[in-house]
Amino acid sequence: MSRALFAVCLALIAAHSVPLSVPPHEEVARMARFVVNKCDWASMATISTHDPVKGQPFSNAFSISDGPAGNGTGTPYMYLTHMEISVQDLQVNPQASLSVSLAQTSYCKNHGFDPQSPLCAHIILSGSVIEVNGSEASVAKATLFSRHPEMIDWPTDHNWFFAKMNITQVWVLDYFGGVKTVTPEEYYRATP
Amino acid sequence: MSRALFAVCLALIAAHSVPLSVPPHEEVARMARFVVNKCDWASMATISTHDPVKGQPFSNAFSISDGPAGNGTGTPYMYLTHMEISVQDLQVNPQASLSVSLAQTSYCKNHGFDPQSPLCAHIILSGSVIEVNGSEASVAKATLFSRHPEMIDWPTDHNWFFAKMNITQVWVLDYFGGVKTVTPEEYYRATP
Repeated sequence: MSRALFAVCLALIAAHSVPLSVPPHEEVARMARFVVNKCDWASMATISTHDPVKGQPFSNAFSISDGPAGNGTGTPYMYLTHMEISVQDLQVNPQASLSVSLAQTSYCKNHGFDPQSPLCAHIILSGSVIEVNGSEASVAKATLFSRHPEMIDWPTDHNWFFAKMNITQVWVLDYFGGVKTVTPEEYYRATP
Repeated sequence: MSRALFAVCLALIAAHSVPLSVPPHEEVARMARFVVNKCDWASMATISTHDPVKGQPFSNAFSISDGPAGNGTGTPYMYLTHMEISVQDLQVNPQASLSVSLAQTSYCKNHGFDPQSPLCAHIILSGSVIEVNGSEASVAKATLFSRHPEMIDWPTDHNWFFAKMNITQVWVLDYFGGVKTVTPEEYYRATP
């Protein structure tokens, strides 16, 4: 393919791709719901229980889902196993923090927003990560497996279980002027 | 553009894009260096100093750079301000954890690897985040601003400073069988 044809193709593809439309930055709770729903994975911070970093903060990546794209509930579900180091931390202390950033989508790159820029919106959820059972486990399963179909085939001998973050505080970095906080009530009331 | 031309264009673009070639998974230290160099941002876990989550783990996104793509030093530099909540945590306790994941590149999606799959390699660095000064600040500046040119224009009244993670332990999740650890010596000896 010639360079010219390649360039034309790139331009045509760009023109046909659907740009991500984010909520107005001042609608902070809505922005939080939007980013959580848009993101496929989060970074979870725990207090480590493992030598040589026992008692120190520990960051690790986990897949999340709060529902179908565009129709999330706000509650991030996770599919976990006690064989995992961060999950072992949660067994001792379930307090955790999940950060999700639009940097994991094409939005920030397309707009020329550095991953650390507040315009590349990132959200932090504080709370506890707890196992869910019964009918909520069925909800979690449907919520996760629809967005992460590979999970269906994860090895059964790992004793996977479903969990959610019980959110106590939401932190929003979506514009200049520093972090803004949102209560769980405001967060769940918002329409993403 | 017709659907047919659009499809042809997509196929041509895919054929011309350079796929990410990752190191063999058993070369664990090399994989760690590769992922750190490939990633533009990290999630940093700190122990929060902010109510109502004081003493709890806190996760937040920061841009990093260890050097030009394909030629990194292994040391992740950051551009920080004391106005930032996680940086305020570091002032009280510089112990932190940085996680970086190939999920932030196109690699995992292109290969059908879920973000939580170990095949979507993710690395965790434990250590302390400390300010750098003098000639190392000049190195940090060149290292960061080349990969994050937007930083050049960040507001000067924020009193930005350069920092690095002083790595004490590296954790690698790049294959089945659980997390593997790499010493800083092995990490710095490896060629990414």
